[in-house]
Amino acid sequence: MPNPTAAMLVIGDEILSGRTRDANMHHLAGQLTEAGITLSEVRIVSDDHEAIVAAVRALSEAWDTVFTSGGIGPTHDDITADAIGAAFGASVDVRADARDLLAAHYARTGSELNEARLRMARIPDGATLIDNPVSVAPGFTLGNVHVMAGVPSVFQAMVASVLPTLTGGTPLTSTSTRIDRGEGDIAGPLGDLAEAFPDLSLGSYPFQKDGKFGANIVIRGQDADQVAAATARLEALFA
Amino acid sequence: MPNPTAAMLVIGDEILSGRTRDANMHHLAGQLTEAGITLSEVRIVSDDHEAIVAAVRALSEAWDTVFTSGGIGPTHDDITADAIGAAFGASVDVRADARDLLAAHYARTGSELNEARLRMARIPDGATLIDNPVSVAPGFTLGNVHVMAGVPSVFQAMVASVLPTLTGGTPLTSTSTRIDRGEGDIAGPLGDLAEAFPDLSLGSYPFQKDGKFGANIVIRGQDADQVAAATARLEALFA
Repeated sequence: MPNPTAAMLVIGDEILSGRTRDANMHHLAGQLTEAGITLSEVRIVSDDHEAIVAAVRALSEAWDTVFTSGGIGPTHDDITADAIGAAFGASVDVRADARDLLAAHYARTGSELNEARLRMARIPDGATLIDNPVSVAPGFTLGNVHVMAGVPSVFQAMVASVLPTLTGGTPLTSTSTRIDRGEGDIAGPLGDLAEAFPDLSLGSYPFQKDGKFGANIVIRGQDADQVAAATARLEALFA
Repeated sequence: MPNPTAAMLVIGDEILSGRTRDANMHHLAGQLTEAGITLSEVRIVSDDHEAIVAAVRALSEAWDTVFTSGGIGPTHDDITADAIGAAFGASVDVRADARDLLAAHYARTGSELNEARLRMARIPDGATLIDNPVSVAPGFTLGNVHVMAGVPSVFQAMVASVLPTLTGGTPLTSTSTRIDRGEGDIAGPLGDLAEAFPDLSLGSYPFQKDGKFGANIVIRGQDADQVAAATARLEALFA
């Protein structure tokens, strides 16, 4: 049976402008692969209402689960909650359960729960909250979309909350074999090997180092025995 | 006048699986920002024909220019050229100009121009070649789509070839101001500042360090005087 699929939507002008390098995608990719869930597509869009709505709808329809990161803080550029609500036709307002979490937190820390902070309690109707052990302001799940913070420590904590609730598939086994020849010499035999193991995915990732060309050949599959057999055959081919 | 827009399509199972961390997107984002071109959307899709075709079509229609990375080598998983051809209804075959480049290169280096390497001369009809000073096998431009290699050194060389051919806009000026207060305290005044400077983009990027919360406020715009004025006002607000 094919593994469940997932997509990620990164909301962030700062990544598109090159100011910041996204770290959340790489983290999520690794976590999903371990859980046996296939990350099938990623989109990065700007802090723009229509762009977020369109991307959420498309990804939500195409894949089993969607994760978003970014745009759920207290400032004027945090527009994700409203966009997710709009994508699902759900109204968005300050919700009592989220407000209570924030009120308790700010009472403890002595900060004021002002109008800006209260924006973080704006949750679409029908959504369930995602726990934020780092900075309290919750994420939320609406339909098959999990809406999470962009700050990496918070994003990672939220992924850890959400992942156990998802049904995973068979984790993929993979091997990586370095071949110190140009891809052009590897390609023919590798193509034959791929045909001999139709259930496996064989990827060739070329590199060059000190003027020499080579490639890392990654073999992936759900059946560990098949992966081992194909890897042994690959090693024999280029020994 | 708004700046020209661009999108990027990354083709790569290895990034979606978490094995590799993409470096090309961050490089391109910085280069485009310097050139005054707005990177508006990025998509990452797997090594899948239909997925590539659909993404190229969508991005090509939505934005002025599209850059792709990955999938143009000699191995069985290098399917980008055919997918781009399919997206534009162009036939794809070994082309004499590309074959000549490869033949000269492999004659020089003493390697055989075998069937696999010849795949790298498969170029869609009507495309123009993009120079590859690193490893010769060319990229190509078809319509508004620039198809480039995934290996970072080659990708960067191809970006350097393509960028001077594009019409840029006014490069954005930006400032980044660190405010050592929680976003919830910053949000109200920041929202007012954003309203006072409707031509600028004000982004708030929260962080936490040693248990303290703060945010970097990035102010961007085409008019350097306005950016400076808004930054001065911001600093005065939180001095």
